[in-house]
Amino acid sequence: MSLTDGAARAALRRLFDAAVASAAPGPAVLRHLPDKPKGRCIVIGAGKASAAMAAGLDAAWPDVPLSGVVVTRYEHAVPAGRIEILEASHPVPDAMSETAARRILDTVTGLGPDDLVIALISGGGSALMVMPAEGMTMADKMALNSALLKSGATITEMNAVRKHLSRIKGGRLALAAAPARVVTLVISDVPGDDPAVIASGPTVPDATSLADVHEILNRYGIELSPAAEAALARGQETPKPGELVTDIRMIASPRQALAAAADAARELGITPLMLGDALEGEAKEIGTVMAGIARSAALYGQPVRRPAVLLSGGEGTVTIGKGKAGRGGRNTEFLLGLAVALAGEAGVYAVAGDSDGIDGTEDAAGAVITPDTLARGAAKGLDARAFLTGHDSYSYFDALGDLIITGPTLTNVNDIRAVLVI
Amino acid sequence: MSLTDGAARAALRRLFDAAVASAAPGPAVLRHLPDKPKGRCIVIGAGKASAAMAAGLDAAWPDVPLSGVVVTRYEHAVPAGRIEILEASHPVPDAMSETAARRILDTVTGLGPDDLVIALISGGGSALMVMPAEGMTMADKMALNSALLKSGATITEMNAVRKHLSRIKGGRLALAAAPARVVTLVISDVPGDDPAVIASGPTVPDATSLADVHEILNRYGIELSPAAEAALARGQETPKPGELVTDIRMIASPRQALAAAADAARELGITPLMLGDALEGEAKEIGTVMAGIARSAALYGQPVRRPAVLLSGGEGTVTIGKGKAGRGGRNTEFLLGLAVALAGEAGVYAVAGDSDGIDGTEDAAGAVITPDTLARGAAKGLDARAFLTGHDSYSYFDALGDLIITGPTLTNVNDIRAVLVI
Repeated sequence: MSLTDGAARAALRRLFDAAVASAAPGPAVLRHLPDKPKGRCIVIGAGKASAAMAAGLDAAWPDVPLSGVVVTRYEHAVPAGRIEILEASHPVPDAMSETAARRILDTVTGLGPDDLVIALISGGGSALMVMPAEGMTMADKMALNSALLKSGATITEMNAVRKHLSRIKGGRLALAAAPARVVTLVISDVPGDDPAVIASGPTVPDATSLADVHEILNRYGIELSPAAEAALARGQETPKPGELVTDIRMIASPRQALAAAADAARELGITPLMLGDALEGEAKEIGTVMAGIARSAALYGQPVRRPAVLLSGGEGTVTIGKGKAGRGGRNTEFLLGLAVALAGEAGVYAVAGDSDGIDGTEDAAGAVITPDTLARGAAKGLDARAFLTGHDSYSYFDALGDLIITGPTLTNVNDIRAVLVI
Repeated sequence: MSLTDGAARAALRRLFDAAVASAAPGPAVLRHLPDKPKGRCIVIGAGKASAAMAAGLDAAWPDVPLSGVVVTRYEHAVPAGRIEILEASHPVPDAMSETAARRILDTVTGLGPDDLVIALISGGGSALMVMPAEGMTMADKMALNSALLKSGATITEMNAVRKHLSRIKGGRLALAAAPARVVTLVISDVPGDDPAVIASGPTVPDATSLADVHEILNRYGIELSPAAEAALARGQETPKPGELVTDIRMIASPRQALAAAADAARELGITPLMLGDALEGEAKEIGTVMAGIARSAALYGQPVRRPAVLLSGGEGTVTIGKGKAGRGGRNTEFLLGLAVALAGEAGVYAVAGDSDGIDGTEDAAGAVITPDTLARGAAKGLDARAFLTGHDSYSYFDALGDLIITGPTLTNVNDIRAVLVI
């Protein structure tokens, strides 16, 4: 395949944009709406994409008596007509997180069987909507979180404990909404797309039990505050599978976004190979491994014949050592690691970006690399290895004019990576 | 596919053994022998697998007047009949490396056009056969190496300099053998299998020039010893492509070994997916990335439908931080990183091992993981994460009885990794 440099860049940008567009909250909500209710429609929700989801719903059902309250992250609010939008702190909850939880619980209390609750759930909802078990303060809740993080427990184990010490998580919000019908629309940003995990599943039955919680606390020697002890001692189980009527619709996910990128690739005559929606690890090392796979495709047509694109999602990590760190997120760090490992390999291009438009804390979603990324850097006196070591990948791509700036997309289906081999 | 745990282990071991067997030096030499010569056959060579290659050749041609000298690494010697075997130090050369180079050069000097030189080249040969340019001592050569390693030059650039300051590398050995015919049999342990790179290509034309060398020395500000300066100033070029008659046969390589594992998988009804023969990066991070790909295959049948095996080669690295490091090589570290990231994912098994039978400095080639690797460790009170952090992966798999012990295989086609998803 003979693509010019410009055409390769355009193809990659098209793949990235297709992935992000597939997760646009408004259209995704429209595609998955239930039948209109006989009674009222109460809209609640929490998460980084949830205000944008609410705006889509408000616009779609002008004729339905609709009201509600949704919490999103600061700076992620958009007007949503009849649905009130609150803002709270992420990733560390603040007082607004508790206020929002209380408002949302109040909103679903006292409904009737003809009423419809639509829960708009997306990543980040767990911190944005917080209500500790009765008797526990936010300080107890913070102490619990920090004890869990230090314990060595897995994320699944931590979530089991958290759900049993919350008045809203692990299906308890849905329980409070009975006898109204609850439909949950979910935008996933987690590997495996388990709705019980996203925002700690406030409307999703919980497969873990109090017995599990006690076992976990014992095994890891986790100390609880007296208030948390007392709450557990009251022995209130979360609702279990079969105890809730559930209608949970995954309206956007990393996997769906990657599938949209794959479709866009096929339209361009490029064979997509999906490596997985949850490739994790140190970002620059993911780049090194991906360079090996891309080189094999370029040289030998394995694992896929070119023109091909290697697609993957998931969140890399950037571990900052003792030195001073520059600017950059996990996507630009991945790309710079990839470029250094490729060492100018002909015919290999890549894009990587965070679907929410914000790579780490930067104003770019990500960037693009080309076979001459290192050479263009060197021509400007920039040593790519030094920028990589200094975790200054944003600055490197900024200097090259290769950042991708989308602004906040108000959705979040994690990172999108596409390595093109032509 | 329903495979028992035992059957999955057996399948993985069969794949690993098939890969290693494909690189067995004796049979590989036999498959690639040239026609017998009219005159004498002079056998020379250098590398970790070269004594075993010589033994195969000696046995194969009892009726040919055959003699020669081959250098291998200490403890890698095997009797090779009429071919003398020397031993020297690797990876840091010693006095025997220079003795061996001198003996080998003498052996090919003064031959006639009917004589056949067979060069048996394998990984490690560069350190085992060393002859600095005229006027340079081994101390000059060592100083050059350390200046190169500190300079930031790429491995390709370092090799360009080294070849121009050697009397044997970069095709100079072949030049010395003229007018005899030279056939080179190569076992590759490098990504891309470039014969100019393996053992610094003593019989392979050199595409780099003295002008390149001066440019590299200038660019990186590399200081040479007066003897090295003088040697360069004499302006002796290495032989260039077209200036040597070459007959170079790649008789075993990482790629061929992985292809043998792929064939063995197909015979078992398992679909192989070759990810590449040169997947590099931090060993445990390769494990984390591979876990993401394996999980995608298990859950979604992408990038390949199960039963499938993800094959890869190449060398990971193990970076030891400030803490005390335990026992382990890059293959067991990769596997423990993989097991931790998989967190007990059902149906995923893996084997990884160094084809030379020695993972790092241990007596194991590698190990095997199963879905219950972490659980079996926990039952013995072993915390896999702690062993991983402490770079003590050998001890972990030793305690589980999951090491693979082959003994030295006398060949080397780098690491073989196979991740089975059933």
